[in-house]
Amino acid sequence: MALACRVMHGEVHVETRSRFETVDLTRAIEGWLREKGAANGVLTIYIPHTTAAIAVNEAESGLLSDILDLLKELTRPGGGWRHNRIDNNAHAHLGNILVGPSVSVPVRKGRLLLGTWQSVLFIEMDGPRRRRVLLTFVGEVEE
Amino acid sequence: MALACRVMHGEVHVETRSRFETVDLTRAIEGWLREKGAANGVLTIYIPHTTAAIAVNEAESGLLSDILDLLKELTRPGGGWRHNRIDNNAHAHLGNILVGPSVSVPVRKGRLLLGTWQSVLFIEMDGPRRRRVLLTFVGEVEE
Amino acid sequence: MALACRVMHGEVHVETRSRFETVDLTRAIEGWLREKGAANGVLTIYIPHTTAAIAVNEAESGLLSDILDLLKELTRPGGGWRHNRIDNNAHAHLGNILVGPSVSVPVRKGRLLLGTWQSVLFIEMDGPRRRRVLLTFVGEVEE
Repeated sequence: MALACRVMHGEVHVETRSRFETVDLTRAIEGWLREKGAANGVLTIYIPHTTAAIAVNEAESGLLSDILDLLKELTRPGGGWRHNRIDNNAHAHLGNILVGPSVSVPVRKGRLLLGTWQSVLFIEMDGPRRRRVLLTFVGEVEE
Repeated sequence: MALACRVMHGEVHVETRSRFETVDLTRAIEGWLREKGAANGVLTIYIPHTTAAIAVNEAESGLLSDILDLLKELTRPGGGWRHNRIDNNAHAHLGNILVGPSVSVPVRKGRLLLGTWQSVLFIEMDGPRRRRVLLTFVGEVEE
Repeated sequence: MALACRVMHGEVHVETRSRFETVDLTRAIEGWLREKGAANGVLTIYIPHTTAAIAVNEAESGLLSDILDLLKELTRPGGGWRHNRIDNNAHAHLGNILVGPSVSVPVRKGRLLLGTWQSVLFIEMDGPRRRRVLLTFVGEVEE
């Protein structure tokens, strides 16, 4: 028998310590799914921030540096952007435009359906800051 | 008691007036959510277009220019792209590839869970055109 | 009367034949929706891979080359990335960061609500490989 779907909201927090930094959120998110009894559905991972981003990729230390290097190269921190006249972080807003503020990941039997090399990555581009990551599960819940 | 989830489809329209332009959709989308009685769930904001994009960021006028400048820099309007042999808008398709055609935003108590500085932005790269923005809410609805 | 929502998981497979390649997934995905009796809701299309990406754009052959050319230009295959010291595919991971691993598309009366020029595109950046595309439908199902 198919269970009815339900909605559950929650959040995890990240304290970043540098201006540029990546944080692996996978364990915190999987802990939240377990605690809530999420079973089958989709998890929307969303940040209410404009100077950070969410991606899903491999948490290999060299690659994590490469990701930040690529974003700096494309968005030029301190460059002649108009937004830098009022706040010196245009690059971080632009990095969010390119990478995005959310990702939706399927959930099955309570687990994110991540591939072998995938981790959910928070990308800080204007830290250090206290950041929120909003989690919304829509799907079947364990009774 | 948990309410059962439901699906509601709708759309808002945008008339762009320039080749490159950003339009803040936040109020129109929140108006739709209210009108429909959406309560808790996820809103998928999706454009059925290949030469525009959807982002979520700060609607500050300098930054909005910076976003368009960055996209022009990366995708080079009028550049030597193959698609420009048949239609002079390869840059706009490429901007859509980088930014994306959709975003999913959590909804709680009938409001988008946007951060303080977040607006939902329609990014026109091949206007002026009449554009559609498809809204699909999945979640609990007020009775 | 509103039907209750349900969740359905599935997948389609892609065998890529080149290092860089795009594959149009639209027909395979629409076939899956029909087979499953999906009616109204949202389909999350998600790849459990870190060196490929998912986009929605026009399947015009010149443009498909342009997309791969842009990604190569921005991410420089064989470039001096740190990740290339352990695996020569940093560019493909970086392309995934820019384009993304998933897209959510509204479904109505069993069809993806794609625009006239939209196709769902799998973007291979480190092939040839056998790839999986995970499909999760949340919404109303035909009885």
